[in-house]
Amino acid sequence: MQNVICGRCVKCGREYEAVPDLTNCECGGILDILYDYDYIKTVFTKEKLAARSKPTMWRYRELLPVEESTPDTELRVGWSPLYEAPRLAKRLGLKQLWIKDDGVNPTASLKDRASAMAVAKAREAGAEVIACSSTGNAASSLAGNAAAAGLKTYIFVPSRAPKGKVAQLMSFGATVISVQGSYEDTFELSKAAIERWGWYNRNAAINPYLSEGKKTVGLEILEQLGWQVPDYIAISVGDGCTIAGLWKGLKDLYAIGFIDRLPKLISAQAAGCYPINRAVETGEPWHPMEENTLADSIAVGVPRNADKAIHAIRESQGLTVEVTDAEIMAAQKLLGRSCGVFGEPAGVTGTAGVKKLIEQGRLPADATVVSVVTGNGLKDVANAIQACGEPISVPSDMEKLLAAFAENHIDLR
Amino acid sequence: MQNVICGRCVKCGREYEAVPDLTNCECGGILDILYDYDYIKTVFTKEKLAARSKPTMWRYRELLPVEESTPDTELRVGWSPLYEAPRLAKRLGLKQLWIKDDGVNPTASLKDRASAMAVAKAREAGAEVIACSSTGNAASSLAGNAAAAGLKTYIFVPSRAPKGKVAQLMSFGATVISVQGSYEDTFELSKAAIERWGWYNRNAAINPYLSEGKKTVGLEILEQLGWQVPDYIAISVGDGCTIAGLWKGLKDLYAIGFIDRLPKLISAQAAGCYPINRAVETGEPWHPMEENTLADSIAVGVPRNADKAIHAIRESQGLTVEVTDAEIMAAQKLLGRSCGVFGEPAGVTGTAGVKKLIEQGRLPADATVVSVVTGNGLKDVANAIQACGEPISVPSDMEKLLAAFAENHIDLR
Repeated sequence: MQNVICGRCVKCGREYEAVPDLTNCECGGILDILYDYDYIKTVFTKEKLAARSKPTMWRYRELLPVEESTPDTELRVGWSPLYEAPRLAKRLGLKQLWIKDDGVNPTASLKDRASAMAVAKAREAGAEVIACSSTGNAASSLAGNAAAAGLKTYIFVPSRAPKGKVAQLMSFGATVISVQGSYEDTFELSKAAIERWGWYNRNAAINPYLSEGKKTVGLEILEQLGWQVPDYIAISVGDGCTIAGLWKGLKDLYAIGFIDRLPKLISAQAAGCYPINRAVETGEPWHPMEENTLADSIAVGVPRNADKAIHAIRESQGLTVEVTDAEIMAAQKLLGRSCGVFGEPAGVTGTAGVKKLIEQGRLPADATVVSVVTGNGLKDVANAIQACGEPISVPSDMEKLLAAFAENHIDLR
Repeated sequence: MQNVICGRCVKCGREYEAVPDLTNCECGGILDILYDYDYIKTVFTKEKLAARSKPTMWRYRELLPVEESTPDTELRVGWSPLYEAPRLAKRLGLKQLWIKDDGVNPTASLKDRASAMAVAKAREAGAEVIACSSTGNAASSLAGNAAAAGLKTYIFVPSRAPKGKVAQLMSFGATVISVQGSYEDTFELSKAAIERWGWYNRNAAINPYLSEGKKTVGLEILEQLGWQVPDYIAISVGDGCTIAGLWKGLKDLYAIGFIDRLPKLISAQAAGCYPINRAVETGEPWHPMEENTLADSIAVGVPRNADKAIHAIRESQGLTVEVTDAEIMAAQKLLGRSCGVFGEPAGVTGTAGVKKLIEQGRLPADATVVSVVTGNGLKDVANAIQACGEPISVPSDMEKLLAAFAENHIDLR
């Protein structure tokens, strides 16, 4: 990899050769992948990129930590649509707003970007098995992307994992181990198994390449905007890997001169679980919190990438915002009816945060904002039912329909 | 529309001017849109198409029945991935197989193609409201695409409609009318309301433009294959509109000289409901059937586009095949684990049909086949749970894990 210099610990600064199965620093800190931007500038231009028809995250090879000989992964990950949302912008009182719908990825979440990277690096490592512990989008995206690549997966889930998510994993042919115990018990057993059998580790707490996959969401947003930099990019935050990846992508583009300024990040967390935002707001180190939110994908009381995330939010001079479950559910409806985008609760938390920041007067009306929807609403239909109310019920009778329309104040023009 | 000649009734041959709110023929027959292929040949070439970067169904404008001034619809519909599936091909004993994953459309099914067309035509008609009766993918795709376009929708569902699907509709801001009665009662009330208020009608039984939207799946398959014609294209069949649209697209390409032969269609229906296949197989007119299958999207006992579908299957010299619910569920697992594609039951019925035809010796091993997955497995998680079995359950203990792996014959290499 001529474009990569090394992996450097974000805590102690120690540097490591960028081997495919790179893990944490000896000090316990997570690594950051360092690039040779001078070299990249000589081989990568906007014109070169524009000539590529490939609608996937692999169009950004020069900025990704993979060997030239490593094949693209099989599923079509990335290049999700960026929709301008003039009606929603007007309703929120905002100059310009775009929605990046990452819920149309192959397994229906942004996590496909990290899992595709894991598959690519597992191949470089010569591994035939990838493992992780997770109950959510990380697990299903790993299972799907690995299945398409012909790799085996072992996925450890706590026994409380929702049956629907387990079914998706099983349909992708993952070997799913349901651990009778807490998430911590599950993680420990997975760690022991990964060490014992030498499986490739897809764990955002350990594998520094995963956020390099996620950063492609940031690269795409800017390319899709024709390199016009928005003032803010809003995204929901759980363990911190996604927002850290987004920031990495933006900084890459700045470093190679594709953009001339950086957007500010908006870190949206649930009011029932916001350890990363609390650390940013108080200036204290982060501490664990309880996980009181229906937005399961960001209900992370012990965030694994807190250091990278906190650094990113601060460095971007970004905003933090906490939204209640009711505000998340309202944002789900708002996005659906104004944009035709159906996001899962964690997926729409960024948009809920934008709305709240405007109401609080912290986001100026003349700002230009991109809001990333990180996962599909079909991932969690139960909460959508709660959020969206009941239909009008009538017999098959026009008079009764008229009465029902009147009663429900339906405007028939 | 310089490219369109008229709408012609498939039953009596009567011709109608192609106005935006075209409906059925006076004789009750559905219309087919006729094109001026000589004109199209003068304005549309493969080179022109290849130069378009637009990854949506609207890249085929010259073959679509819309005015030049009509804007593209808002959501990114179409240009779904076509995956080559060598491992699945080998497992089935087939020379070459591709999977077209239409479950990654904005509302997660192929129906988005028809609904985007409905939105475009409603705009041409000056309509601000679109209506239909449906409980499934047609309804959710209409609600989503219309919401993105700022149009209102009235959607009539029978009271037995699944709550999850209703929730998705409500999240898109549709006015949902739950009719206490059968589907027929629901349809009648919607018909009366559409007539009374003059709403634009998105109903595949009536609106001849919808299958013109669906045909883009066929256009894409051929373009993605570099105009190399596969021997067969397999797809699940319910009311017949989708397979009829697919065939229309293929014939369009043949008519303008983009391809030099036509593939054969494989019409896959559920063994518990196959009125269209039965008509093809017996040579008799179609008759209603009961709807005994878990593949709800194709549980159509009274198909609305039977005439067009039967004609298409026959004209292509295609194959018909009926698959049991058990075979559908097996195909769901097979697609998931070999390709990383998670389809809903109706979505994977085409692949189940391919498998069965090979086992029956009706599909030769040296055939090249495309199988279309019409909808996302997340649409129906309950059935996936049934299909995919239970995970391995252990305490957080390596010895117990070893014992469980041995017991389950897990190959750890």
